[in-house]
Formats: sequence, structure tokens, C-alpha cells
Amino acid sequence: VIVALAGGVGAAKFLRGLVRAMPPQDLTVVVNTGDDIELLGLHISPDVDSIVYTLAGVADPVRGWGLHNETWKALELFGRYGEPTWFQLGDGDLATHIHRTRRLADGATLSQVTTEIAQSWGVQSTVIPMTDDPVRTRVIVEEAGSGRGLDLHFQEYFVKRQAQDPVREVRFEGIEDAKPAPALLPSIADADAVIVCPSNPVVSIGPILALPGVRSALRNFNGKVVGISPIIRGAPVKGPADRLMPAVGMEVSCVGVADAYRDFLHTLVIDFADTERAPEIAALEVDPVPAPTLMRGVPQATVLARTVLGLLAQ
Amino acid sequence: VIVALAGGVGAAKFLRGLVRAMPPQDLTVVVNTGDDIELLGLHISPDVDSIVYTLAGVADPVRGWGLHNETWKALELFGRYGEPTWFQLGDGDLATHIHRTRRLADGATLSQVTTEIAQSWGVQSTVIPMTDDPVRTRVIVEEAGSGRGLDLHFQEYFVKRQAQDPVREVRFEGIEDAKPAPALLPSIADADAVIVCPSNPVVSIGPILALPGVRSALRNFNGKVVGISPIIRGAPVKGPADRLMPAVGMEVSCVGVADAYRDFLHTLVIDFADTERAPEIAALEVDPVPAPTLMRGVPQATVLARTVLGLLAQ
Repeated sequence: VIVALAGGVGAAKFLRGLVRAMPPQDLTVVVNTGDDIELLGLHISPDVDSIVYTLAGVADPVRGWGLHNETWKALELFGRYGEPTWFQLGDGDLATHIHRTRRLADGATLSQVTTEIAQSWGVQSTVIPMTDDPVRTRVIVEEAGSGRGLDLHFQEYFVKRQAQDPVREVRFEGIEDAKPAPALLPSIADADAVIVCPSNPVVSIGPILALPGVRSALRNFNGKVVGISPIIRGAPVKGPADRLMPAVGMEVSCVGVADAYRDFLHTLVIDFADTERAPEIAALEVDPVPAPTLMRGVPQATVLARTVLGLLAQ
Repeated sequence: VIVALAGGVGAAKFLRGLVRAMPPQDLTVVVNTGDDIELLGLHISPDVDSIVYTLAGVADPVRGWGLHNETWKALELFGRYGEPTWFQLGDGDLATHIHRTRRLADGATLSQVTTEIAQSWGVQSTVIPMTDDPVRTRVIVEEAGSGRGLDLHFQEYFVKRQAQDPVREVRFEGIEDAKPAPALLPSIADADAVIVCPSNPVVSIGPILALPGVRSALRNFNGKVVGISPIIRGAPVKGPADRLMPAVGMEVSCVGVADAYRDFLHTLVIDFADTERAPEIAALEVDPVPAPTLMRGVPQATVLARTVLGLLAQ
């Protein structure tokens, strides 16, 4: 069994290839929930949904998030009713949030609901939210213009304010009191290998690693741990990593990624374009492996997945 | 100002005409909430929504309920997730329920939310849910086949089980502890006239009349009270009145309707087809007025509304 640590969009792109390169039932994906948000009275888990929809083959490939064949009727009415519309909720997606919220209100855990939703879509891999407890990624910024300090939910920072405000700090609210989801540490303990998906190291992989016991479990893990750098030529393929990594003291480069994971990572797949940085990564005692990492579609993702599986088999 | 007592579909058909026959801002509609139901964690007010959508001009004229230009994406997913799908929830309609549920959770009353929703659609009339308290119409039936007693929510009886089970009794759960909505009795006190819409006398108008103080307010009302019979030739135009009226001892006829309202009703508009029943209604000290009451569309509804307004002006 392979355990993959995942955020949303970047991880989803890679996992589309991974489930074509290995038996999907042998894959367990641990997904960030720091991005979860309550809106309109509904519990929304954007990264979990991205991963489930992707593994189910119903994610929208163009938009990069949400369902394909989506409709947007409810959003029209939310606007009319003065409800927030900055977080785009499709009609099908709303059904997922309504169902999840109802199950949680009935006393189900986020792990249970996630398993149920994944199974209802016929997903063969196991999908585990990183925790059943509330953890919320807060981004402390200087408000663009005023310079005033603002403490924002990640989605407010990223989606509502479009990552325009200079970042001072990133906090994972509730992380000290959060327990890893029941299946998380046992999955790592039983795994043959761990993959760190090409996700944002600060706000996607960061919250998973910050959960009590996860980082030490990875350090003590007996199998191989391979990551894929989400940073190519000093810039993220997508998302705000270039604005978040400096705020937590990471260099915005594949070297910065290697440094962030060096205590448990054996190998980091970096882009061919970053081959010149390989010696710096090797100096961190992480094995750098240049490869084509830009995934324009499923064929490239599958090739990248085979490269990673090849490294795990070494 | 005219106060209209209303249920869902039958009342909506009539009100489409009424707001064309009088200044809509002079109309206050008191709407049944006994049909309200909690489903999927959402507070659904079917009759209130039917009236608001109708007065807003966005009701679906073919279906008779819900929004026009509706989409049904969420319903597909509810089926996949094992959620109930017998109560058809459109995507736009879901936005209304989500918004209402969120506002109620924030401490708003059903009256407040209803006013807000009506205003957001530009409705010029006043729409008042009959109460801000929970009242639920229960239909006690003999289960078709087994004969076993079942205590059903009205929507379960009517929509889920399609009114197939013989009815023993109808109860308005919570009615003793429910207060009329704050604006209800003052609206009647200040009204020039009251109209009882052509709605089901048992489960649409019945709950409004059963609220503490409403029936006596109508009895003591100084203006004229005119009703329109929803029963033509001993059968309802739509809905299960023919199965519910006998269970509460009402004859399924315009005479049964007159009898149900005789303590406060001055005039009952009955269909031409029922002209022969006029003497029986007169004997109940209700003035029978034959007219064409079948509303195939807005023109017929407008003529009927003018007839009613003419009677009120007499």
C-alpha cells in the first residue's frame, strides 16, 4: 500500500496519473483539511472534494476544481439573497456539502462521511481527511493599501482577496488539539511507501505535517518517502506558494521544498529545468531526481507517476 | 388593505390574478406553514415559497410549484449519496432553503426571513408566514395494504406516499403552543377585507384558523370576509382535499367548505357548476355567489379576482 499526502489541485493532477500507474485500491490518500470552511451553514472541504471528484473521474479538468457538467443556478439566488458569492459553489457541489453537513450534524465523523462519499462515487482508493477535528489555516497579512494587520481564513486570503495582501504569518488554528484521523498513523505504519504530492508545502502539506505525531511517524517510517516539487524555476505551477513560502522562511524553489521535508524525505523529484539545483538538494541529504514534472494532462501525470513508482521500487 | 389567507398551489393561482386586479402593495398574504418540513438539515417552507415565487413572477407555471428555469443537478447527487429524493428540490430552490436555514440559525424569525426573501425578489405585497413557531401537520392513516396505523408528516402522506393511505385523522402538532406571527392579528385588525383563497380547507387554511386567536379575530372582524371554494362538483381541482375533508367530518363539496368557515365567512364564491347547491349554503347564513372559478391561467384568475373584489366593494 502506498500513502500519498495531498492538498487539492496540484495533488489531484498527479493522482489522476497515479491511479492509472498502480492498482487504485492499493492507494491511500491523506488530504489536507486546513482549507475547510463553513459557509452558508455548510461544511465545505475543498481539498477532500477535489481529491474524491478526481479519483471518481468527475472533476472538471478545465476549471481544476469542482464537478464537471456543473450548473450554477443556486449561486444566482445566493447573490439575490445577499449571501457571499466569492466562493463559487456549483449546484452539484452544494449537494455534497449539504450531505456532509447533515451527516456531521448526525454525529458522523469527517472520516466516515468522506469514506461514504468516496464509495458512493465508486472510488477504489482510500481517502482520509487528515483529521476529524477542526483545523483552520489562518493567513495573517498586511492589508494591501492600509498595511493594517488582518487575520484571514485561508479561503478569504486566497479566493476572496485573491492573495493580494503581503503575508506576515501562517497559523493552523486548532492544530494543537487536533488528533490525526484514526486511520492516518496506522496507514503510514502499514505502508510500503509514502508519496508527498506536488502540493503547496505551507498550506497543503504543512497542516498534515503539523498534526501531533505525523511528522515523527514519517521520520521513523521504514519505507521510502518520495516527494514531487510543486515549484519549478522558483515559481509555483499554480496557487500562492510563492507568497506563502517566504513568510515561513522557505526559499521559493525546489531546494526550499527539499529543505522543508528533509527530516523525512528520501527523494525529491524536481523538474528538468531545475537540474542545476540538484547539488544543493543532495547537500540536504535528499536525493534529487530531475524529471518532466509539468502535468498538462493525464498522459504527463501518468508518466510522472510511473517515474515516482520506479523510484519507490528501487 | 386586503388580507388573504393562503395555502400553496391553489392560492398561488388565484393570487396571480389578484395582484393584477388591485394594487399589490395593498395586499397582505398570510401563508400556511403546517406543510413546512426539515429535510437534509434544511428548513423548507413549501407554501411560503410558492406564494413568494408566484408574487415575484418566477414560479413555474407548468409544474405549479418551484421556480421556472430550474435545474436539478443537486438532486442527482442526493440520490447518489443515499439522501431522500422523493421531495423534489431544484437547485435554485435549494438556495432559498439554505439561505432561510442559515438566517434562522442566526436567530432571525421565519417572518423576518420571509420578508427579506420577498423583498429580494421585488415582491410588493406583504407575505406573512402564519406563525414563527414550529407547527407540523400530521396525517394519521391506515397504511394501504396492512391497515396498520401510521403517523405521517403531511409531505410524507402527500408527496412520498402520494395520498394513497386512507386517512383517519389530521393533527396540527405544536398548534397549542404556537403564537400567530407578530403581524398576523394586527393585519386582520387593520384590514378592510379578508379573502380566503381557494386552498385546501383542512391542511392549508385549517392550520391558520387553528392558531390561538385567529378564528375569533375573524369572527369579530368588522369588514367583509369572502372565500372561494376549492371544491367544484364535489372534487378538488388539485390535491388531496377529497381524502382529507371526510376525515375531519367535512362534506367534499362547496357546502362543506361553507360549513367549515360559516362562523366568520360572509360570502362564498362557488363554481357555476355548483349553482344548485347555493340554497344549502344560504341556509348556513353564508352568501353563495356562483362564478367561473376554474383558473386555467392568469386571465381567468384575474376575472375571478375582480369578481371577489367586486363582492368586497358591495
